[in-house]
Amino acid sequence: MIELSKDTVLETLEPAECRRLLATAVVGRVGLVVGELAYVLPVNFALAGDLIVFRTAQGSAFDRLARDRALTFEIDHVDPGFHAGWSVMAIGWGMGLEDQVPPATLHALELRPWGMGAVPGWIGIRMNELTGRRIVALPREMRER
Amino acid sequence: MIELSKDTVLETLEPAECRRLLATAVVGRVGLVVGELAYVLPVNFALAGDLIVFRTAQGSAFDRLARDRALTFEIDHVDPGFHAGWSVMAIGWGMGLEDQVPPATLHALELRPWGMGAVPGWIGIRMNELTGRRIVALPREMRER
Repeated sequence: MIELSKDTVLETLEPAECRRLLATAVVGRVGLVVGELAYVLPVNFALAGDLIVFRTAQGSAFDRLARDRALTFEIDHVDPGFHAGWSVMAIGWGMGLEDQVPPATLHALELRPWGMGAVPGWIGIRMNELTGRRIVALPREMRER
Repeated sequence: MIELSKDTVLETLEPAECRRLLATAVVGRVGLVVGELAYVLPVNFALAGDLIVFRTAQGSAFDRLARDRALTFEIDHVDPGFHAGWSVMAIGWGMGLEDQVPPATLHALELRPWGMGAVPGWIGIRMNELTGRRIVALPREMRER
């Protein structure tokens, strides 16, 4: 993963901390390449081992574009005053879970689907890389004019 | 823009509503293609006409990757119970604003930079497309087992 903010004062989060934050979140955003664009779609998700699991509607473009390709997954939290926050991004491989994970295991995740087609899909992102950063706004007096 | 959720019950938001939501938000996420991946980075932002404006650190990878290319920008809000929410995604062209917008205009946006390098950058996304959807979780009894 390239470091996008290497030369700033943003602090890097340890992988274990990123993992802990992922385990506490319930909504994240899937990043997927569509042509020359990076689409960003929020989903309700759950962790199952090293899988980030979310629902799709089978037959939808989102479902099709999330299977068998590299995906990113992002969570963040920024407080309303912008004085503190964090973001975590996972990189991994998106795959259909229907034939890989027992249905009982998937349903036990209690993922509440959002607007859903006739045939729901289960997608997992197998995480390869996990990075995070702490977001810190500079005090007003330290900022350039 | 392809419709990722065409065959679901997600409601589409009108462009005027998307615009209104953008005007109320202060934190959003830039989506940019890095190799075969869709990177997603939260930023503090402001609207200036049809520009989404945010800060970078000049010389950083983020700054370099945000200039002179197609970018997406996403905002969302999902309530903790997952019963309602929305997401909006803009597609546009990312460009450096330093030579295009008077400094006084940029500084008047009162954008508080996050961790910042020695030379801050100003990036604008000139919006071409703006779409949104209302997120509705199906009632438990309507979901498949």
